[in-house]
Amino acid sequence: MRAFFAARGRVPTDSNFRQADLPQGGAHLENSCGTAPGIRLEHEQGVVFALPGPPVELKPMFENAVIPYLLEALGARHERLYTRTLLLCDIGESNVADILGDIIGEQTDPTIALYASPAQVRVRMATKAADEQAAQERLAATEQLVRERLGEHVWGVDDDTMESAIGRLLCERGASLAVAESCTGGLLASRITDVPGSSDYFRGCVVAYHNEIKMRVLGVPESILQEHGAVSEQCAEAMVQGVRSALAADYAVATTGIAGPGGGTEQKPVGLVYVGVGDETGTHVESFNWPGSRAQFKSRVTQIALNLLRKRIIGTV
Amino acid sequence: MRAFFAARGRVPTDSNFRQADLPQGGAHLENSCGTAPGIRLEHEQGVVFALPGPPVELKPMFENAVIPYLLEALGARHERLYTRTLLLCDIGESNVADILGDIIGEQTDPTIALYASPAQVRVRMATKAADEQAAQERLAATEQLVRERLGEHVWGVDDDTMESAIGRLLCERGASLAVAESCTGGLLASRITDVPGSSDYFRGCVVAYHNEIKMRVLGVPESILQEHGAVSEQCAEAMVQGVRSALAADYAVATTGIAGPGGGTEQKPVGLVYVGVGDETGTHVESFNWPGSRAQFKSRVTQIALNLLRKRIIGTV
Repeated sequence: MRAFFAARGRVPTDSNFRQADLPQGGAHLENSCGTAPGIRLEHEQGVVFALPGPPVELKPMFENAVIPYLLEALGARHERLYTRTLLLCDIGESNVADILGDIIGEQTDPTIALYASPAQVRVRMATKAADEQAAQERLAATEQLVRERLGEHVWGVDDDTMESAIGRLLCERGASLAVAESCTGGLLASRITDVPGSSDYFRGCVVAYHNEIKMRVLGVPESILQEHGAVSEQCAEAMVQGVRSALAADYAVATTGIAGPGGGTEQKPVGLVYVGVGDETGTHVESFNWPGSRAQFKSRVTQIALNLLRKRIIGTV
Repeated sequence: MRAFFAARGRVPTDSNFRQADLPQGGAHLENSCGTAPGIRLEHEQGVVFALPGPPVELKPMFENAVIPYLLEALGARHERLYTRTLLLCDIGESNVADILGDIIGEQTDPTIALYASPAQVRVRMATKAADEQAAQERLAATEQLVRERLGEHVWGVDDDTMESAIGRLLCERGASLAVAESCTGGLLASRITDVPGSSDYFRGCVVAYHNEIKMRVLGVPESILQEHGAVSEQCAEAMVQGVRSALAADYAVATTGIAGPGGGTEQKPVGLVYVGVGDETGTHVESFNWPGSRAQFKSRVTQIALNLLRKRIIGTV
């Protein structure tokens, strides 16, 4: 604990030292992420774990100290749950339910479950086994069935994110990426830079919130803003090519829309957005309408923009 | 439901229509955020609510349809819990516990509880009452006690966020803001644009991930990058003044650091970051060291940068 504080140039207080106390017979669990204590207390009737509350400290400690202890205590007796999750886009949960209805109805092992979150559906296959290889073979067979029905909609597996999938594609091609954002306000760039190593392909982003920045930094012609407005196909296209040029990147993606709650009109309501993607061969723009809260709007538009970028890189738009 | 789909240019499926079925005697609850049904079923022994699972649909329905129903059913009998939460910065949880120890120990109504999250501590005061005015008076008296001890660390109340507090300060002053980000990768701009109406004061942001963008768009001199590196006080200062000038803003804030997991050296380890804030009178830079995951690093540095910006606007740094 003294080292943890020293590394941050701070001095521990009495409360910090009290946290280091141990009950009789208790053992410390290593906390790699903070100062809150973790304790394992073995007793003739069982074992008690006391873990810190903050999730950033609780989760690593559970994974590093509790799970290995329990697995060892269970020995060879334990069955484990093995899962594989396919990640889908451009399709809704009820559509997936209809397409997979007969498989889900007849299948008992692995089981298949659908999960929907904004702009994404997941198909989770799960099986219990003591033998990992047998479990993986069963999962692979079911995965094949599902992929035959939904192939073009499957973009990733398990912990993939759209931004990690894009990172892999760009690395494979040795290509670079630039972003121009209006309504998503930096969230798109933030997700792209959530990927470790993204500095290998990500050049940067211009959040052009004010129209003057769209002109000054991205070179969007004033005539476009006057004739079509900032929320238009023409502006999205100019933002894509402007940021590609200003940041000297191979690929670019741009968003411009109305996040709300204010700023909507009858012709251009809150939730309207234009998303553009482009490379040296040209620019492709699509429009969407996602009414909802500001946070939902930013999150959905970001996911849509990443997906459109992914499709541009693999050459399907 | 037909209108919800029509607004999005999509066609409902059989599954969507099955969702609209109602049990005998049940009443529909309005779902303003999706198609999943909510049902209220009154029975002689009580009332059953069935709500959709996705939090974005569950929460608004609970607030709009369930709480008002329960309050009306309870009539005048019900006591409510009233709370007020003070938001603190630049101080750790154990320090706050030491400073408020005697008050927390002696106080029974309102109760006082501390909550810590990365780079923020909250002091929550709570009291139960049937009479709102009595509750508010008790909370105000306790708030005064706490503020006397912690005044300079209190920056907000209840649902304030650092970005909403900054928005209020900028609006009061009629001032504008620009952001330059390296290691936070767009998260800082994204938080600033989470505030409805932020387009009134937010000019935009340059995420200069690649050094070439720092030079091309922000005008950071190549000599600084060669002599001191991108993660340096000098670079942070040049980014602040560069983005203020490029985006023509009154205030600017900049981040440059090493988010990890790669890219660290002995002299400049993962977690090192320089944060700069500035206006026409000059630039102020501070450095911090926050080892942790990439996500924790981005989140903490963003909070630190917003806090430093807040202190610059109110004139304390």
